[in-house]
Amino acid sequence: MRQVAVIGIGQTRIDEHWEKSLRELAGDAALAALADSGLEKVDAVYVGNMMSGSANHQQHLGIFVADWIGMRGAETFRTEAACSSGASSFRTAVMAVASGMVDSALAVGVEKMTDSPLNEITAQLATAADAEWEAGQGLSFVALNALIMKRYMHEYGWQKEHFAPFAVNAHANALHNPYARFHEPTSIERYLKAPMVADPINLMDASPTGDGAAAAVVVPLNTRVPTSGGKPVIVAASSAATDSLAVHHRKDPLFLKAANSSSKAAYQQTGLSPQEIDFFELHDAFSIMAALSLEANGFAERGQGPRLALDGENIPTGKIPIATRGGLKARGHPVGATGMYQIVEVVQQLRGEAVGTQVENARIGMCQNIGGSGSNIITHILRAGI
Amino acid sequence: MRQVAVIGIGQTRIDEHWEKSLRELAGDAALAALADSGLEKVDAVYVGNMMSGSANHQQHLGIFVADWIGMRGAETFRTEAACSSGASSFRTAVMAVASGMVDSALAVGVEKMTDSPLNEITAQLATAADAEWEAGQGLSFVALNALIMKRYMHEYGWQKEHFAPFAVNAHANALHNPYARFHEPTSIERYLKAPMVADPINLMDASPTGDGAAAAVVVPLNTRVPTSGGKPVIVAASSAATDSLAVHHRKDPLFLKAANSSSKAAYQQTGLSPQEIDFFELHDAFSIMAALSLEANGFAERGQGPRLALDGENIPTGKIPIATRGGLKARGHPVGATGMYQIVEVVQQLRGEAVGTQVENARIGMCQNIGGSGSNIITHILRAGI
Repeated sequence: MRQVAVIGIGQTRIDEHWEKSLRELAGDAALAALADSGLEKVDAVYVGNMMSGSANHQQHLGIFVADWIGMRGAETFRTEAACSSGASSFRTAVMAVASGMVDSALAVGVEKMTDSPLNEITAQLATAADAEWEAGQGLSFVALNALIMKRYMHEYGWQKEHFAPFAVNAHANALHNPYARFHEPTSIERYLKAPMVADPINLMDASPTGDGAAAAVVVPLNTRVPTSGGKPVIVAASSAATDSLAVHHRKDPLFLKAANSSSKAAYQQTGLSPQEIDFFELHDAFSIMAALSLEANGFAERGQGPRLALDGENIPTGKIPIATRGGLKARGHPVGATGMYQIVEVVQQLRGEAVGTQVENARIGMCQNIGGSGSNIITHILRAGI
Repeated sequence: MRQVAVIGIGQTRIDEHWEKSLRELAGDAALAALADSGLEKVDAVYVGNMMSGSANHQQHLGIFVADWIGMRGAETFRTEAACSSGASSFRTAVMAVASGMVDSALAVGVEKMTDSPLNEITAQLATAADAEWEAGQGLSFVALNALIMKRYMHEYGWQKEHFAPFAVNAHANALHNPYARFHEPTSIERYLKAPMVADPINLMDASPTGDGAAAAVVVPLNTRVPTSGGKPVIVAASSAATDSLAVHHRKDPLFLKAANSSSKAAYQQTGLSPQEIDFFELHDAFSIMAALSLEANGFAERGQGPRLALDGENIPTGKIPIATRGGLKARGHPVGATGMYQIVEVVQQLRGEAVGTQVENARIGMCQNIGGSGSNIITHILRAGI
């Protein structure tokens, strides 16, 4: 198995991109990643996307994107695993290059959500859950997470205000990220006054929809890269695991079992412990998911997820910085693109390019992309090149 | 790079499966493949599917299928490349196992088209073309293929009846395949009387929609497989290539350039020439595609695609048998599943289990799955184990 590295990254700002089509959006990120890598061509283009078939009436995104960016001929297909579609495309690129079957691959995550009315988007997002058994009962994604959060607060005695630091940190970091959806700070006061979405989840607990695309170029580590290209960042671990699709099938809905298995495998692949991870780009689609992620991946004890944030340990200068470029909460969450934004942001940190929120001496970064309510989890650990 | 082999196959009959849900359909094929392999668990489940998000209001098919068949925990995602989604899932399984990152993978192709009204399915199928530039002009898939066929007939002087042998062979072979959609023979007379769909494509030129699922288990070639498992079949070549998404972007719409590149690479990987291929499961979504496939892959000269069939060389005892289990035309074409049916059928032939249409001394079989109008092509060459 060949070791692989990321040599180029690209992203668009997450926004309501009325002025751009789906292909332009994906193309902008893909071409930026290619330019950053110094390569002119790649062997393969894997596109992570969840809902273009329904939201944009366009499937077949592999060749759709490859054709647009001048990569006609390259191998292509789309990967979909709901909100973890982005990391699936990256993992596919890693496997393809590691296998030796492909020498260079471009992983692209893209989602253009504003082409569909919001009520339809909510219904389409629910197809990431078990359509018959969950969505069929009227359970939207925010409703599922609200049930989990309510139970968590009851079980461990947390109050609403204890979740505020997740949003405060995310919004503070996004201020420095030109690609973020939101450039406005928030506060405990604003958090507590935010309109309720599905009790106890309010607007400040929930990540926003949006249009966005992010991309990365993957090659074998020993490739002689163009001198114009970005500093290589090593893919030290890639691992995926799953739990039941429906939340009601889990003995303990307050523990992200698949996140735990996935990161355990990633720690094993690298020989690292959670204490050696310099920062963690987690999947804070809802603040409860941030808390549960910190617990499942070995950064906090069971039931103590909010503690680190309350102690100021999740900010860029803390013990385990999270959402350093704004996270899903404030950078934004264009579902199938999110996993690729995480990869791009980890690479930025490891190259020392995370202006405004740079984690000091960042050498090892982890990111984790979640599909469904903890159903499909993909974890990557990246390491700065020498 | 590890060599890989197929050790288990499974499929459902292609039909209007009103009595089965999407998960049951996929599960039946997946569990049959697992049982055939003798394995109880696999590391990964990759699901090829085109349109479940719109046709069945269920996305996230990786964990959806894995959970249903008792593989909670396994790595999962969906692969989509329109009608080549099935082969994409198989190629993903091959890359994953070849890379060493996964030790056993189940590739599943599934499509349940009858959950949506037929007019909606036609619109959903058009999302495999370029939605803005082709579908936006009212070009359905059959219309695109009709334009290509008309031009081909004009250019090379073929008449309508010259395409009849493709349908006759497919229907004759499907008679012996219990999983085929159609179990009725056809004839030149019936072909010529078939109702027109989009001139010059009539009902006997076009493959039928349907519900179906097919699956295969992939492991490293040197794996000690359970004695109860199926005889291993070696994956000798896997290769993918693309052409423009929109047909109007091609200099020559009568040549499947990506099929040519893809099979050329597959021949190189194996050191074989087309003459050494014992049979070819091609993508006869329309009879014009069968003709163009024979030409692009080195079995016929340019413009001579129908000749082999007219000479009786495409039947199971001919020089280059095609559609030996009925092909897309008569076995059926549940779009995202088709590529996996092709894999399953090649394995059947190489194991000597193709009852009724067994190709004598079949040692090397090729299959090719096409997404869009020749946009995305995936070719596999399989070889009988020793």
